[in-house]
Amino acid sequence: MNLKIVLKIIGTVLFWESVLMTPSLFIALIDNSFDRKAFLISIVITGATGLLLKNIRAREHSLRKREAFASVAICWLVISLFGALPYYISGITNNYLDALFETVSGFTTTGATIFKNVESLPRSILFWRSFTLWIGGMGVLVFTMALAPSVGARSIFLMEAEHAGLSPGKLVPKLSDTAKILYTIYTTMTLITVIIFLIVGMPFFDAVIHAFGTAGTGGYSIKANSIGHYNSVLLEWITAVLMLMFGINFSLYYVLLKKDRKKVLRNEELRFYGALVIVATVLIFINILPLYDYSIADSLRNAAFQVTAITTTTGFSIADLNTWPMFSKSLLLLLMFTGACTGSTTGGMKLIRIIILFKSVLREIKQIIHPGSISKIRIDDRTIDNDGVRSILIFFVSYIFVLFVTVLVLSLENYDFMTTFSAALSSISNIGMGYGLIGPMGNFSEFSYLSKITMMLSMLIGRLEVLPVIALLSPSMWHKQ
Amino acid sequence: MNLKIVLKIIGTVLFWESVLMTPSLFIALIDNSFDRKAFLISIVITGATGLLLKNIRAREHSLRKREAFASVAICWLVISLFGALPYYISGITNNYLDALFETVSGFTTTGATIFKNVESLPRSILFWRSFTLWIGGMGVLVFTMALAPSVGARSIFLMEAEHAGLSPGKLVPKLSDTAKILYTIYTTMTLITVIIFLIVGMPFFDAVIHAFGTAGTGGYSIKANSIGHYNSVLLEWITAVLMLMFGINFSLYYVLLKKDRKKVLRNEELRFYGALVIVATVLIFINILPLYDYSIADSLRNAAFQVTAITTTTGFSIADLNTWPMFSKSLLLLLMFTGACTGSTTGGMKLIRIIILFKSVLREIKQIIHPGSISKIRIDDRTIDNDGVRSILIFFVSYIFVLFVTVLVLSLENYDFMTTFSAALSSISNIGMGYGLIGPMGNFSEFSYLSKITMMLSMLIGRLEVLPVIALLSPSMWHKQ
Repeated sequence: MNLKIVLKIIGTVLFWESVLMTPSLFIALIDNSFDRKAFLISIVITGATGLLLKNIRAREHSLRKREAFASVAICWLVISLFGALPYYISGITNNYLDALFETVSGFTTTGATIFKNVESLPRSILFWRSFTLWIGGMGVLVFTMALAPSVGARSIFLMEAEHAGLSPGKLVPKLSDTAKILYTIYTTMTLITVIIFLIVGMPFFDAVIHAFGTAGTGGYSIKANSIGHYNSVLLEWITAVLMLMFGINFSLYYVLLKKDRKKVLRNEELRFYGALVIVATVLIFINILPLYDYSIADSLRNAAFQVTAITTTTGFSIADLNTWPMFSKSLLLLLMFTGACTGSTTGGMKLIRIIILFKSVLREIKQIIHPGSISKIRIDDRTIDNDGVRSILIFFVSYIFVLFVTVLVLSLENYDFMTTFSAALSSISNIGMGYGLIGPMGNFSEFSYLSKITMMLSMLIGRLEVLPVIALLSPSMWHKQ
Repeated sequence: MNLKIVLKIIGTVLFWESVLMTPSLFIALIDNSFDRKAFLISIVITGATGLLLKNIRAREHSLRKREAFASVAICWLVISLFGALPYYISGITNNYLDALFETVSGFTTTGATIFKNVESLPRSILFWRSFTLWIGGMGVLVFTMALAPSVGARSIFLMEAEHAGLSPGKLVPKLSDTAKILYTIYTTMTLITVIIFLIVGMPFFDAVIHAFGTAGTGGYSIKANSIGHYNSVLLEWITAVLMLMFGINFSLYYVLLKKDRKKVLRNEELRFYGALVIVATVLIFINILPLYDYSIADSLRNAAFQVTAITTTTGFSIADLNTWPMFSKSLLLLLMFTGACTGSTTGGMKLIRIIILFKSVLREIKQIIHPGSISKIRIDDRTIDNDGVRSILIFFVSYIFVLFVTVLVLSLENYDFMTTFSAALSSISNIGMGYGLIGPMGNFSEFSYLSKITMMLSMLIGRLEVLPVIALLSPSMWHKQ
């Protein structure tokens, strides 16, 4: 392992993290809030560490696949360690582990919170919290690449590692240009979201915060009742549609800008996504009708909102899911596994993998019936080779393994099974919400240190698509070579 | 699809099923029980249908892999349809679906019961119920082969289909001899179990029934409190050890008889099995200590008993698991997935698959760290080729998919999540017991028709190791060719 290049990359990312903390500092100064000193100190520490590491001399071509994977995994850990400083230094929490939990939950777009009363927090802290969601959404390293393409040509490895196996790919020949395009689309869509929220009547600050929550599909809110707080039917429908939009592969928006509408409509993952959301909404709609006194409008709105909130792994809520019937709960649990489209800001397994898993099971059955028949798994116009299929199968297996281990550790808390299982799944799939104790009205503060550390690891494993993080734990990753 | 050969095989199996019903008829006659007519009618119907189909003329060499898979899946369905007759005709249940549920649960060695009060049932019915477990344990078709090797050389396909992908293999060149050896070991071990139970003080009939339950790893009991009824510490320890023995690959006993002790001790799956049971027992022992007032003897016995009862998918019980802490419950749930060794009578995924899954995840990580490195997955002295690994990965994916669909359907009942999830897992892994409503003291009678049908399908899918049953649902399975 060439540590120098890894440290250099981390330095660059840390430097930019300190820059990203400055808006919060400004808000703290404007509000004359008690945490302005905390932000100043955090910025200085993070920025200085960043500059120190950034200037390490390392040869660019020494970035191999393994350094890329290590960089990404370590990077996410390090930015969380520094990103937690404002919470801790300001004294908002006097427990550094809780501060770290909130930051990891932010960067991984999980949106699980340890704060019992968000409405009492200063705006600067609320902004930083939601900003981490937004930055984490598109990928911390992709962001850095867009701004500072210094790592050069071989940074394709970084992008691959951050979106393991299923990177959005190069839209244009130069990778840093691809990163810029993706961030431009992301930023523009976020701005549009802010404007829409303003039009519907949200205050400016609320609109920005909820736009970050929607765009990053993380779902941090500044209200105890999340989107339900505003009590607006229109807002709820609009938020559902916006969440849906951020669950779509961003490169499809680029294709759309290039006026290739046919290619977008033919996209298998997008079609599957649409079908899944519609079918799930209809099933839940029917299932919750009696609960909403057979009001079609209320049932449909609640069903559509929660299906999109869960499928996109945003985790906003307008209803107390704990009161819903078990069928709806189970169906939403399944959607917690799937997530939405690859190349979006959502968590979960991603639908393209689910499609390929289905297709490989079908192919296996076909081979039982017609032995010797050889058929390729195709998606859109691409053929997925055997290595690709295998790595997706292994992804699935590892995902379930990590989930089970998380369930087992969380079981030590002795909460009910629904709380335990959904907390574990919510962590690895980056949802930030579950049932029981961590239902829409709950939070994660009551969990033990061990559980919180386990959930943090799960969030990182889920966000970085499993293997990069596990690889980091392997001793042979660290051998000199 | 060549239906003729399939029907001929089914005929042979049905004929033998009617023969297997005769012991129950004798018991009914001895007891002068009201169900003697029911057994007589069932034997005549089953035997006549068997003879009719058995005499269909079909060319042996037309048995291809797909016919073998179809035969096995259809066979299990058909023997269950006929095996349910005694329950229905005798009027023990006036619901044919319930009768079918009990039979499917029997043959698949699940041991889930719909009877609320087993202690009031006639001995003939109790015998038939437990006999189905015992026959299903080693495989209905393997049994037929042992008795009637008429299907000939190509019946290796049948054995493969009944133990999909991981057949115990040929112990001796002739397959029907292999079947005979396996059944001889099975029968001898069952007899020894009966004798041991007699020595510990069980009445003769109870000893036979519980020996069937232990050997078939199905766990039907004739007492409401299962093995706990006898209130004997010695019996509980002995039963735990016996269950453990029936979780071992039967061909290893053959190897042992051949005096190759080294080969047995080197067997990876066996070592993993031993380690798993020990680790799980110790963890649960520590976890339940406070519950048993820090009595080391009680905690250890309960832990060891339930770990073996679940790992071997037997489903006997001596404690009310619903009162156990969540960590122990979760750990037992994980063991419900794994099952014990391949080539034994246990259900679940089988440990050899779990080992190979672990190894393939590790290999994938190795390839991230050292791209281009090629390593084979080995188990004992065998190398598992890529096709083998892929089919195990796909097995895992399909297993989880089927489990999730079952959970979703069972959710319609609106029971708590633990009941729902454990009922689904208990079905596909052929355990026959779970938590909540279907805990050790519960039964499956309250479920709806839809749920019962779904669970039956799950049991069959689990017992036949997933793909043969799913393949049957594929239209192209039925094309003429």
